[in-house]
Amino acid sequence: MPVDTDPSPSEPTDLPAGWPRHWTIVGVGGVGGLYGGRLAASGADVRFLARSDVDHLRRHGLELRSPWGDAHVRDLAVAGAAAELGPSDVIVLATKTTDNARVVAQLGPLVGPSTAVLALQNGLGIEAPIAEALGVPVLGGLCFVCSAKEAPGVIVHQDYGLVTVGEHAAGGVAAGATARVAAIVAAFEAAGIPVRPAPSLAVARWKKLVWNVPYNGLSVVLDAGTDELQADPATRALVEALMREVHDAAAACGHGFDATFVDQMLADTDAMTPYAPSMQLDYRAGRALELDAIYRAPVEAAAAAGRPMVRTEALWRQLAFLDRRARGTRGTR
Amino acid sequence: MPVDTDPSPSEPTDLPAGWPRHWTIVGVGGVGGLYGGRLAASGADVRFLARSDVDHLRRHGLELRSPWGDAHVRDLAVAGAAAELGPSDVIVLATKTTDNARVVAQLGPLVGPSTAVLALQNGLGIEAPIAEALGVPVLGGLCFVCSAKEAPGVIVHQDYGLVTVGEHAAGGVAAGATARVAAIVAAFEAAGIPVRPAPSLAVARWKKLVWNVPYNGLSVVLDAGTDELQADPATRALVEALMREVHDAAAACGHGFDATFVDQMLADTDAMTPYAPSMQLDYRAGRALELDAIYRAPVEAAAAAGRPMVRTEALWRQLAFLDRRARGTRGTR
Repeated sequence: MPVDTDPSPSEPTDLPAGWPRHWTIVGVGGVGGLYGGRLAASGADVRFLARSDVDHLRRHGLELRSPWGDAHVRDLAVAGAAAELGPSDVIVLATKTTDNARVVAQLGPLVGPSTAVLALQNGLGIEAPIAEALGVPVLGGLCFVCSAKEAPGVIVHQDYGLVTVGEHAAGGVAAGATARVAAIVAAFEAAGIPVRPAPSLAVARWKKLVWNVPYNGLSVVLDAGTDELQADPATRALVEALMREVHDAAAACGHGFDATFVDQMLADTDAMTPYAPSMQLDYRAGRALELDAIYRAPVEAAAAAGRPMVRTEALWRQLAFLDRRARGTRGTR
Repeated sequence: MPVDTDPSPSEPTDLPAGWPRHWTIVGVGGVGGLYGGRLAASGADVRFLARSDVDHLRRHGLELRSPWGDAHVRDLAVAGAAAELGPSDVIVLATKTTDNARVVAQLGPLVGPSTAVLALQNGLGIEAPIAEALGVPVLGGLCFVCSAKEAPGVIVHQDYGLVTVGEHAAGGVAAGATARVAAIVAAFEAAGIPVRPAPSLAVARWKKLVWNVPYNGLSVVLDAGTDELQADPATRALVEALMREVHDAAAACGHGFDATFVDQMLADTDAMTPYAPSMQLDYRAGRALELDAIYRAPVEAAAAAGRPMVRTEALWRQLAFLDRRARGTRGTR
């Protein structure tokens, strides 16, 4: 199937009317498949850049099983290399952060004068390298969602799904509700995706870490699901201590938020269907763990701000050991 | 085989000449088997109180494989219940601390006027409950030893073996080199066991925790041997951080020691033949982990002294989760 390229990007660098006209979803896993599939199903002009599953996606489309309604999106524009696609208004980066350097270096053909990148990835330190590599505005989206690729082209969305979108500004300062944020929020809303703008992307990223730091790491180290971690009093206390450590570190880094958010995350997870966090799935599949974005960056930022994340650092070191052992690599940290 | 009972204990409560004349070793595992076997092989009057393996030990004796020299100690006095034995000058408690309440409650028949208990166990909070239950002086011995029961009556002593012996005094204050400590040290020396007196048992116990807290716990949580934990830079850094946390907590609790001891433990472990700590063996065998003595007691003591052991507490909570899951028990902490 020929992909829908755009050979003549000619928008001014100011946000053009109707922006974003076209999207390229990079990575068709639990996140890219779900949100890209919903955008495509809503009629948006969406292309997919996949590493694996290209032929399968072209032939069979994308099947979404979701509490938002099941969908089978056919006739997808799917490419295996960015050169097969032209520039796109929004490049949605939905791959693992562990691949960012390699993936971002290949995205040049997708960049036109009105392009922005929306990184649907967890952790800190995501945007600056992308902005530097591609010279475009970079936004971040935090997805509080339980969703995974069950098979090629089959995305099982189990629960939740809210996306919080903010724009990166140099130094991590709050960019406010920019026109790009508003346009992306509107497009997501039009596709039936729950979404809200984040005046400060850095605050949104730290808040997301409140969930990811305890559950991602402990699910790997203890080979346990969220329900087991919540039910045992020892791990529940450890989860809460890790959450409060993230909260305190965020405040020390100048990106603080209300402490009741920790209670809300605990309650949300209590109410959640038992879930295997993506890091646990990565570990079981022998894939690299997203340790730099989710652990190293916050630990180093907090230490630099004079508020060390002692428990988080200990968990990170356990994960680094397991990650290296599982993949047979040798470490230097 | 009839056991050598002593039906007429008549020593004064002052330490009688020739003390200790007889020993009862409670627990014939890696510690009790090694040290009891060495004492018996040296000609000391040693009885064994075993839970399992009683018939095997009576029939086949105790086989020691050790860098100190292999030995096969036959014609052992072995009982399955304390009532089969009379009072003993030294009751060597070499069972798991998890069994202390149950085991100590059964030791009444072993107590005479000159009896003391020597607990060859790791952790804090060991002596006071024993002293209260039996009304006898209680000593503690810290064994820096790699030794395990490989099969009934077969003790494989891999490396090290130094025992540090001190006497408990109310409130954990230093009892100094008491006559009982000196007599036990002399008896161990006569049996070829490397031994040294500890003027402060509490300091000796905290120093032993410098090794046990990191290696016992991490070997279980990460399913790793000491060599793997030492070789990976992430776990090595975590081991050292845990060790320094123990050092700092000991100081806060008034039982401080020189910080170079941490470097010595790291170097000793580097030089050690790869070893599966006893807690890892317990976990693999589905036995209860010694969490109260090795984790709960120091964590609570440090918190009470205003110096929380944050990493140690996190590791304890992980272990409590794993311990309960492995044994199918429900927790309240």
